[in-house]
Amino acid sequence: MPQVHPILVDGKFRPSTGSDTFTVKNPASGETFPDIFPISNWTDIEAALAAAEKAFHTVVNWPGSKFAELLEKYADRLDAHKDEICLLAHQETAFPVPTRLAGNEFPRTTNQLRLAAKSAREGSWRMATIDTKANIRSMLVSLGPVVVMGPNNFPLAYNAISGGDFASAIATGNPVIAKAHPLHPRTSMRMAELAHEVATELGFPAGFIQQIYHLPNELGLKMLSDRRIKAAAFTGSRNAGLKIKEACDTNGKPVYLEMSSVNPVYLLPGALSERRAELVDEFSGSCLMGSGQFCTNPGVVILFENADTQPFIEGVVEKFKASAPVPMLSGEGRDGFHKSLQYLISEGAELVCGGKVVDGSHSMHEPTLLKVTGKQFLAKPHEFQSEAFGASSLFVVVKDAAELLAITAHIHGSLTSSVYSAKSGADDEVYEQLSGLLTRTAGRFLNDKMPTGVAVSPAMNHGGPFPATGHPHFTAVGIPGSLRRFGMLVSYDNVRPERLPAELKDKNPGGVWRYVDYVWTTDDVTSA
Amino acid sequence: MPQVHPILVDGKFRPSTGSDTFTVKNPASGETFPDIFPISNWTDIEAALAAAEKAFHTVVNWPGSKFAELLEKYADRLDAHKDEICLLAHQETAFPVPTRLAGNEFPRTTNQLRLAAKSAREGSWRMATIDTKANIRSMLVSLGPVVVMGPNNFPLAYNAISGGDFASAIATGNPVIAKAHPLHPRTSMRMAELAHEVATELGFPAGFIQQIYHLPNELGLKMLSDRRIKAAAFTGSRNAGLKIKEACDTNGKPVYLEMSSVNPVYLLPGALSERRAELVDEFSGSCLMGSGQFCTNPGVVILFENADTQPFIEGVVEKFKASAPVPMLSGEGRDGFHKSLQYLISEGAELVCGGKVVDGSHSMHEPTLLKVTGKQFLAKPHEFQSEAFGASSLFVVVKDAAELLAITAHIHGSLTSSVYSAKSGADDEVYEQLSGLLTRTAGRFLNDKMPTGVAVSPAMNHGGPFPATGHPHFTAVGIPGSLRRFGMLVSYDNVRPERLPAELKDKNPGGVWRYVDYVWTTDDVTSA
Repeated sequence: MPQVHPILVDGKFRPSTGSDTFTVKNPASGETFPDIFPISNWTDIEAALAAAEKAFHTVVNWPGSKFAELLEKYADRLDAHKDEICLLAHQETAFPVPTRLAGNEFPRTTNQLRLAAKSAREGSWRMATIDTKANIRSMLVSLGPVVVMGPNNFPLAYNAISGGDFASAIATGNPVIAKAHPLHPRTSMRMAELAHEVATELGFPAGFIQQIYHLPNELGLKMLSDRRIKAAAFTGSRNAGLKIKEACDTNGKPVYLEMSSVNPVYLLPGALSERRAELVDEFSGSCLMGSGQFCTNPGVVILFENADTQPFIEGVVEKFKASAPVPMLSGEGRDGFHKSLQYLISEGAELVCGGKVVDGSHSMHEPTLLKVTGKQFLAKPHEFQSEAFGASSLFVVVKDAAELLAITAHIHGSLTSSVYSAKSGADDEVYEQLSGLLTRTAGRFLNDKMPTGVAVSPAMNHGGPFPATGHPHFTAVGIPGSLRRFGMLVSYDNVRPERLPAELKDKNPGGVWRYVDYVWTTDDVTSA
Repeated sequence: MPQVHPILVDGKFRPSTGSDTFTVKNPASGETFPDIFPISNWTDIEAALAAAEKAFHTVVNWPGSKFAELLEKYADRLDAHKDEICLLAHQETAFPVPTRLAGNEFPRTTNQLRLAAKSAREGSWRMATIDTKANIRSMLVSLGPVVVMGPNNFPLAYNAISGGDFASAIATGNPVIAKAHPLHPRTSMRMAELAHEVATELGFPAGFIQQIYHLPNELGLKMLSDRRIKAAAFTGSRNAGLKIKEACDTNGKPVYLEMSSVNPVYLLPGALSERRAELVDEFSGSCLMGSGQFCTNPGVVILFENADTQPFIEGVVEKFKASAPVPMLSGEGRDGFHKSLQYLISEGAELVCGGKVVDGSHSMHEPTLLKVTGKQFLAKPHEFQSEAFGASSLFVVVKDAAELLAITAHIHGSLTSSVYSAKSGADDEVYEQLSGLLTRTAGRFLNDKMPTGVAVSPAMNHGGPFPATGHPHFTAVGIPGSLRRFGMLVSYDNVRPERLPAELKDKNPGGVWRYVDYVWTTDDVTSA
């Protein structure tokens, strides 16, 4: 009988003290992998919490360069095991290796780790601020142990042990307890092994990086509520996210959430008339990519009822019908997707194409298009914004600009909103009215561009108002912004010069960007 | 019979539709003022919410200079009515006019308004970030209507219609619904009249600045939960703060709270031996100032048991006994203070001096000192950190450094922590161990300085971990930091150049500080 895989707690891969276990299926074939993973109990968690707290006390005054080294060496180690990791991720998620994992998500992951490392070493993320007259100096400092929970749809770039939240929390000096997604535990375990190797080689304390695979919901919430946990990050379903949010909120902890998002796309009439074929291609490509399993998938498309509408929809239908269904991330995910579509239909949405599971497959579903009128949408704005996580979208056909604006007022807080408008200027009046509203509805506002594809850029905002996230001030992607989430602000008031952290001393040999007497500069400070 | 004062809703001073009213007492004399103020019902609130939303749609694209003008003109108008406002505040709070109101809090208030205005005009608070290669640009933008609730202990500088939260929310372009503190409504009403005059003169929409005086708790929470409110700010008791936090959290709204704080002060043995008399003066002055009614009042003083301890305590007792009791903010506040002290005594604290209400006074209480051993504190760390809001402090006398560190691990999240250490270096070892912990316990870490006195500096952090506030990333004092709380991050992705907000266009005639391709600069951008 195969062994139960160990958890990484307090510097060792050791057996869980829990007796429950789980296994995972290959989403493409439906076959169960031989690996057995533990479901942790409170004894495991208590050990992890104690070790994380102890580790934090050890590293609390370490310079950013130490965390940078860790992230860089880890990125190198991952690179050395790229094929192996991409293969594991492929087996567990059915994402294709060349186009998705090796060609895209893996390099994005190591890039994020290296950018976070660069930022950790450089220190500008801290927003060091110096008031030379009052001799008050402030900056962001590490918070303490952070729990990171990743989603299933990015097994590398959002993995709790390798993704953006992990990189951000580590770069800012916080120990991480990674809660692996229970649908890709082998990928997570292999990466945790490499992370642990590197942390050990660099002399990090035992509890700095830890990983568990699964635990009962109530213990997860208990862990988040524990005084030793100082923040949490979660990407996943709204249902789980809201429970996590409540546990953190009640205990006054920062929690960075990415829950579902509607991502409305507005195709204004002038744009549709100017370049319908282009829009058919762009929209279909965006919606079908990765079986639509992206948080920025365009879930609602708003367009006017006119002569171009039906031909546009028919063009998209043709693309959707021509696309070969591919396995989704899991059989459960596929079934959930199907149920969400059925729900939208039961609320009155018209099925335009697709709608069925692929017979005989474990996890395939036809790409699906649904349609409602603006009037229907306005009658049930909440119902028609239920997320269907997969290759699908809901066309909302409005009769005029007034209806379009009325609908916009009901769009849920989202990660993105996109407007396609005519180059001729024909749509400018509607655009003008829309843009004010949409920049407060979503964290990223796009012109003539689909929302899928989230560049790792310092100017990226992968965030937005609730319920897309838990706080509209912060971004989960883009460095140094994503690092700042894991920092607390501290003023050093009258602290003796020799006792100040390096980033706040008069001399600035590291060339950290600092806000000194209302001016951003990398210069030394001449104290008054 | 005197008229019920009007509320300021939808651009008019108009009668509340509620039938309940309240009156206020002069805290010095205990006499009831003749003024009658309304307790609002939901009809009032609904009107305010609708007007605030409408006002936001009008101003959503206004430049920062418009909000700057409003704040500056308001500061000027307040200056023109300084005597009148300070007198009203004096009558309602018993704070002395020359030393406290006219001499200190009033100029701080207008200074905050002007600094916020400067920042609104200048625009650097937005943290504009430009990635020229990817053509993604981001910045903070206004959120929408904000509810501001101020405390009683700063009737001007934290007033919901004139204080730091008000200034920050307005400077960032958000309509404000001010919920006046019901213990100083006349001061608040007079300032609302001036704010309204100025807003009208400058052509602001009707619902941009509104004020109500009181409302039942459940309606307050309903207002915060309403979709039209986008954020809230509250300074006051922990009890009220936690309810407000829950209402906002549940609905996914940013809420900036300042609730009670312990503000531990560590007097290390070397410092006490070097300069005992100085420390007696500094500590007594800080603790007695404003009858101790400051959020940064030193509530817990930690010192070693040795030959200097008793003389130090005796020195403080002498100062406390010599200080003439003054009226507190209200009779209820005084009674609450007395009850908190009684509670600490019932838990085992030794009464060192004071402890009694002043007979025959409406709101006076003797300044009070309490004492426990380190062992006692460790047995009931939660109980001994119950806030007693007034001129009092709890001495915690520890036997060694290990006990001091153990206590420190149990200190609640605070606004400040202070360490006094020897100039000789005799305390350096303990300091070293303490400083790592204390910079994560409180938002402001002081050396050789008492926590009272919060400078309005860009490097100030008036914030800290829960339960002192609701989020350790943000500061309530210090500009531009305090403004950023009321901004949401938005990326403009591929947005056409002419449609970008001024702060994100290539040309930067305003000289806004922007983070362009990882460099802070006020230069124009040369797009790729």
